[in-house]
Amino acid sequence: MAAGTGVHDAEPARLLGAARLPRRSRPLAGAAVLVAEPVQVVTLTSDFGWGSPYVAAMKALLVRAGVQAPLIDIDHDLAAFNIRAAAFVLWAATRDFAGLPSVHLAVVDPGVGGHRRALALDCGDGRRYVGPDNGLLEFVLRHADRPVHGVELTVPVGAAPTFHGRDVFAPAAAALASGTPLDRLGAFCGQLVRLQMDEPHVLWVDRFGNIVTSLRALPTELEVAGHRVRQVHRTFADAAPGVPFLYLGSLGYVEVGLRDASAATQLGAVLGSVVAARG
Amino acid sequence: MAAGTGVHDAEPARLLGAARLPRRSRPLAGAAVLVAEPVQVVTLTSDFGWGSPYVAAMKALLVRAGVQAPLIDIDHDLAAFNIRAAAFVLWAATRDFAGLPSVHLAVVDPGVGGHRRALALDCGDGRRYVGPDNGLLEFVLRHADRPVHGVELTVPVGAAPTFHGRDVFAPAAAALASGTPLDRLGAFCGQLVRLQMDEPHVLWVDRFGNIVTSLRALPTELEVAGHRVRQVHRTFADAAPGVPFLYLGSLGYVEVGLRDASAATQLGAVLGSVVAARG
Amino acid sequence: MAAGTGVHDAEPARLLGAARLPRRSRPLAGAAVLVAEPVQVVTLTSDFGWGSPYVAAMKALLVRAGVQAPLIDIDHDLAAFNIRAAAFVLWAATRDFAGLPSVHLAVVDPGVGGHRRALALDCGDGRRYVGPDNGLLEFVLRHADRPVHGVELTVPVGAAPTFHGRDVFAPAAAALASGTPLDRLGAFCGQLVRLQMDEPHVLWVDRFGNIVTSLRALPTELEVAGHRVRQVHRTFADAAPGVPFLYLGSLGYVEVGLRDASAATQLGAVLGSVVAARG
Repeated sequence: MAAGTGVHDAEPARLLGAARLPRRSRPLAGAAVLVAEPVQVVTLTSDFGWGSPYVAAMKALLVRAGVQAPLIDIDHDLAAFNIRAAAFVLWAATRDFAGLPSVHLAVVDPGVGGHRRALALDCGDGRRYVGPDNGLLEFVLRHADRPVHGVELTVPVGAAPTFHGRDVFAPAAAALASGTPLDRLGAFCGQLVRLQMDEPHVLWVDRFGNIVTSLRALPTELEVAGHRVRQVHRTFADAAPGVPFLYLGSLGYVEVGLRDASAATQLGAVLGSVVAARG
Repeated sequence: MAAGTGVHDAEPARLLGAARLPRRSRPLAGAAVLVAEPVQVVTLTSDFGWGSPYVAAMKALLVRAGVQAPLIDIDHDLAAFNIRAAAFVLWAATRDFAGLPSVHLAVVDPGVGGHRRALALDCGDGRRYVGPDNGLLEFVLRHADRPVHGVELTVPVGAAPTFHGRDVFAPAAAALASGTPLDRLGAFCGQLVRLQMDEPHVLWVDRFGNIVTSLRALPTELEVAGHRVRQVHRTFADAAPGVPFLYLGSLGYVEVGLRDASAATQLGAVLGSVVAARG
Repeated sequence: MAAGTGVHDAEPARLLGAARLPRRSRPLAGAAVLVAEPVQVVTLTSDFGWGSPYVAAMKALLVRAGVQAPLIDIDHDLAAFNIRAAAFVLWAATRDFAGLPSVHLAVVDPGVGGHRRALALDCGDGRRYVGPDNGLLEFVLRHADRPVHGVELTVPVGAAPTFHGRDVFAPAAAALASGTPLDRLGAFCGQLVRLQMDEPHVLWVDRFGNIVTSLRALPTELEVAGHRVRQVHRTFADAAPGVPFLYLGSLGYVEVGLRDASAATQLGAVLGSVVAARG
């Protein structure tokens, strides 16, 4: 693998506590509490399943709490026990909201009710995230280009031990959406759970069967699931049918595609398959 | 089975006609017609399939009728020929809207165009439901804590005999959403179709494979599909991997879970499987 | 097959350039640029998959561009390599928005980045469509009852060659949604790619297994996948269980249904199956 092509080489995100925030973001002693502007959109991402009553319950809470912003569903069929894949999709689906005051509620939470912490993060570019501290925010942190400010949410007395989505995360999202400053939701969270990704691998497979790898720079050859892919093209229309090819995908990662067919099926690649780049 | 643990023991919902409504809800003779406030949300639930043109057609009708409230999709992949399971999901997904002026449009309607009646109900807590009188509202009625006011909708001349969702239910939902009082939509409906549930059974299986039973109180042992479950825990993080356990779920029903895996798959339980509680 | 029963007999849609628009729709030389009213709804249709980050990316672009109208998802699981079926669903799902100022963003685009053109169309009844010129708009054009005004969109420098949904179509949809006149988005597009449909066939199968054919008038007998269907009913409740029957569906096409079961499964019919009508 060529040096510097893996996403795992990215600089770790910097986390700031309230004390290290720029002055204008801190509550002023003896002054009125600063209130942020209401956000323009709230997104929801989970592994509850499309159509789950649990998704509806989170939305009911948001609406009852007075959230006026549109609610946008990202995905609710995230792989239930695969935090890494979920983390990638969460980032990929919410990155373009940067610049917009927005709250992103993300619940893939197999450790609910246990010791894992509940978080709210501010990326400094308008995006605020609410979710469990289990690696789900890994790619958001990797791609953050400003210091990220994070707090640990308090679990309210009476919260259902199996449904923090409704009883912990949604209320925090509603508060942020209504303009409550992050600092009011909890204390500085310190070091977050991070995911290790030592080898280049398959991050995600899209619905067409295109394979999204963890590489950021186009190699001249990529080995995927025992197959060598050597063609490099700009887009599908440039490729010959039946021959898998490499391209730099719209998310900024190297992908393997196949014209009018599924590269993942043809090559036998799945989530997590190791890939090896040359050149 | 322990006495009093089954949902089927719930007191039947009381149904009120217009004549029995509290004074402030009745149209005043000789006075201006009372108009309710527009609602804050309209939800849609069906078995049409996510992405069905039939769902879009209902939304088009709502928007064209001037509905300003956000439209929230609950589920459109409800089991097509399983009214009981659909009735449970409908209640579970909309219960948390209690307290909010809201309309819930629900269409699982195999008897469309036949003799089954079309209904609009007011739960007295802000929630109004529109749907067929075929048992789909069973759990909403079971859990109603106030008298439910119901009317039978008139089928407009020219309504497509196979699509009352668009031509009967959506127009009624639009009217309610815009502030039309329930009484204006039809006459008192009298007795509704109710579902019988004599034995405790599996009401629903969530996406993780957790089994939601019809029991409301935690037993010390539960037999499910020939397996005895004896562990009782508060949440997943407290349980040992591989050992199914009982817990009181966030919906208020007894559930069977399995840490990081599907209890339904391991135990072979499906919708409708009979369960037996001890202790 | 009886003459005149096939949708393929429909009169071709008329396409107008800016020069042929009625006076009030043309920019006036030397006058302020006319700006249309903002639309009341934007729908999204694609084959990206429900939950795809690509759907979210298009929505992020719309919201960041200032679109205030509600975003309504039509379908994102359209058959990825079946333009004809996608074209039918797109029309079926958006036809009822006629009369409402609305934008319909449709991306089923296997030729992205190649020579296929990008389009924006105005149906003259409030509906505006944005999508690739690959036949996806076939049924919208077939059913247009007014001259359709179409322009070819310019591909911005820097657009990702594999994601015109985000970089070409969504920006055009956002512009239209905000009141930019169609003429400002590109030059008259001339002849569009049309789909040929010589024989009556299965256009779509709904979630219940009902078979939607391309016929518009009820025959007395229909041959489907080697089976002859001779029963004709008004709705499901009138039919005997187990016996497939013909009916005129709510979309205006002849359908084959089966009470409480899937006609498609019983008859072995799939998308594109040829059908033959008699009488």
